[in-house]
Amino acid sequence: MNDRLLRACRLEPVDATPVWFMRQAGRSLPEYRAIRERATLEQVVADAALCAEVTLQPVRRLGVDAAVLFADITTPLPGLGIDVRIVDGVGPVIDRPVRSADDLAALRRFEPEASVGPLLAAIRLLRAELDVPLIGFAGAPFTLAAYVVGGRASRDAAAVRRLLLEAPDVADRLLATLADLAIAYLGAQVAAGVQVVQLFDSWAGALSPDLYRDRVAAHSRRVLDAVSALGVPAIHFSTGTAGFLEDVAAAGGDLIGVDWRIALDDAWARIGNRGIQGNLDPAVLVEQWPVIEAGADAVLAAGGGRPGHVFNLGHGVLPETNPDHLARLVDLVHERSAVGAAA
Amino acid sequence: MNDRLLRACRLEPVDATPVWFMRQAGRSLPEYRAIRERATLEQVVADAALCAEVTLQPVRRLGVDAAVLFADITTPLPGLGIDVRIVDGVGPVIDRPVRSADDLAALRRFEPEASVGPLLAAIRLLRAELDVPLIGFAGAPFTLAAYVVGGRASRDAAAVRRLLLEAPDVADRLLATLADLAIAYLGAQVAAGVQVVQLFDSWAGALSPDLYRDRVAAHSRRVLDAVSALGVPAIHFSTGTAGFLEDVAAAGGDLIGVDWRIALDDAWARIGNRGIQGNLDPAVLVEQWPVIEAGADAVLAAGGGRPGHVFNLGHGVLPETNPDHLARLVDLVHERSAVGAAA
Repeated sequence: MNDRLLRACRLEPVDATPVWFMRQAGRSLPEYRAIRERATLEQVVADAALCAEVTLQPVRRLGVDAAVLFADITTPLPGLGIDVRIVDGVGPVIDRPVRSADDLAALRRFEPEASVGPLLAAIRLLRAELDVPLIGFAGAPFTLAAYVVGGRASRDAAAVRRLLLEAPDVADRLLATLADLAIAYLGAQVAAGVQVVQLFDSWAGALSPDLYRDRVAAHSRRVLDAVSALGVPAIHFSTGTAGFLEDVAAAGGDLIGVDWRIALDDAWARIGNRGIQGNLDPAVLVEQWPVIEAGADAVLAAGGGRPGHVFNLGHGVLPETNPDHLARLVDLVHERSAVGAAA
Repeated sequence: MNDRLLRACRLEPVDATPVWFMRQAGRSLPEYRAIRERATLEQVVADAALCAEVTLQPVRRLGVDAAVLFADITTPLPGLGIDVRIVDGVGPVIDRPVRSADDLAALRRFEPEASVGPLLAAIRLLRAELDVPLIGFAGAPFTLAAYVVGGRASRDAAAVRRLLLEAPDVADRLLATLADLAIAYLGAQVAAGVQVVQLFDSWAGALSPDLYRDRVAAHSRRVLDAVSALGVPAIHFSTGTAGFLEDVAAAGGDLIGVDWRIALDDAWARIGNRGIQGNLDPAVLVEQWPVIEAGADAVLAAGGGRPGHVFNLGHGVLPETNPDHLARLVDLVHERSAVGAAA
């Protein structure tokens, strides 16, 4: 069993820096595209064998140090009674957003086995196959709320930010509901076998430091505390939060995931005694190899070979990325960071 | 003459904190909308009297401490031979983006009087009318490049970031061309009478710290140095740059403008001995008065009444903002910050 990622979460030394990629499953892989010619994303997630296969593809092809469960951030929402359509080129679309106390009252209680049974079955299948840790994930309450209130992604997450200001009580109850969802969803994933979880707060960067700290952070903290109580390490990822990274870190996480808009060493100095994950610009991965190599070297240098550094991108793999370059990058990270490698 | 803004740029004490709003002209004002019913944005900018009138409207109605010339960030681009359409709900659209050495070679030299003569005439008209300073502005080279290369706004400014990585020489020459444009455009504005200039780098936050520092900052610095050589104070505004604000500040500016994604006092501590402008979340301005009041008080408290604080939003006024609230906010800022006011 390759336990580099688990050791990094505990700040223990490793023989080489662990590396995996957000969105490594799907998107850029031809074997994934072949599957998507006959199945929608929703169909893949609803079929345990297919979901496990898609999750395994990048582990086989790339040699990464972790598998990450294939699903969409909105996958558990129908379990609350919130219907989601995945639209090509747009992402998740919610035709009936949740914006009022009445909308909230109409939501159902999330039952993991009934709602995402095939995903949990996929986890059990994967654990029998994998010799790297399996990462589960959920959307952080605010980021899920950005979709649930706004109906779809928008540059500034304007709708949910307005709800926070205009109807603080409704917003607070919605965030609490989405935290409950994340706790139940991640708890079921852990029970099924995931060994690490990542909480994605991809939209937190739309907030002011005050709003994040006073109105949002406690909901994320409750999710991360619940994961911690299960004895499973958590990665707390956000983007655009360089203005209040200390607050993000204070909400929890064994590793803090950062995007490319901040230098890794600067970020690490601000998050206290814990590990860090990131932060190569995904746009770099689309370029010719020398550009990728230079970008990777800069991230490795900023990580400085310290225990607790997990190599990753600053956000998800872009669809136009060449999978051969991803595989070559995994080798590069391992070779350059190997204990005993020439400096 | 109300010189609060000019004094703040020089870090001199003021009788009350100066306040103006990005996008104060246009958008939310009914008298502006009445004009736009009979003229497009391009027509307003091409008519000196109309442009001056639109610039004056918020000064009359709101009591702000500065006027800001009404124009779009892309207004000077046709002077380079780059055609721009302003599309409602989208913003500026460039149907033939500039992406290659050949595209660059086809550009014309910018001649201010020929390209933006009416705007310069509007400045002269305005100086005869105004008893507050007139702010001119230009897009920073990278932000203009985001439009020129991408063809329109996009969340991550992906096209121009790819050009920086894939064709460094073309990108560098494009940024140099856009810096030349900004220098000529701002120089002509200063010659016509603007007393302060603001350089807008609204897209810089899409960059990594390394790319900003190594490939972009020098072009902004050249523009800001040229303004400085004219003896006119400059405001250097960017959004999403909390990860590398020191580098933004190092590129120049008497005041550094920050968005709402960072605390004003944190930002001020990072930019050295100069003033700061910002940073109320524009979404707050759309809310009921008590929410606005609380937001304004937080910004004033973070500013601490120190010389060099200019009250503003973290980005432009949103169209749905109530103009009465803007006027009330100006009064609030003046009253609470007045020298001798009870703490």
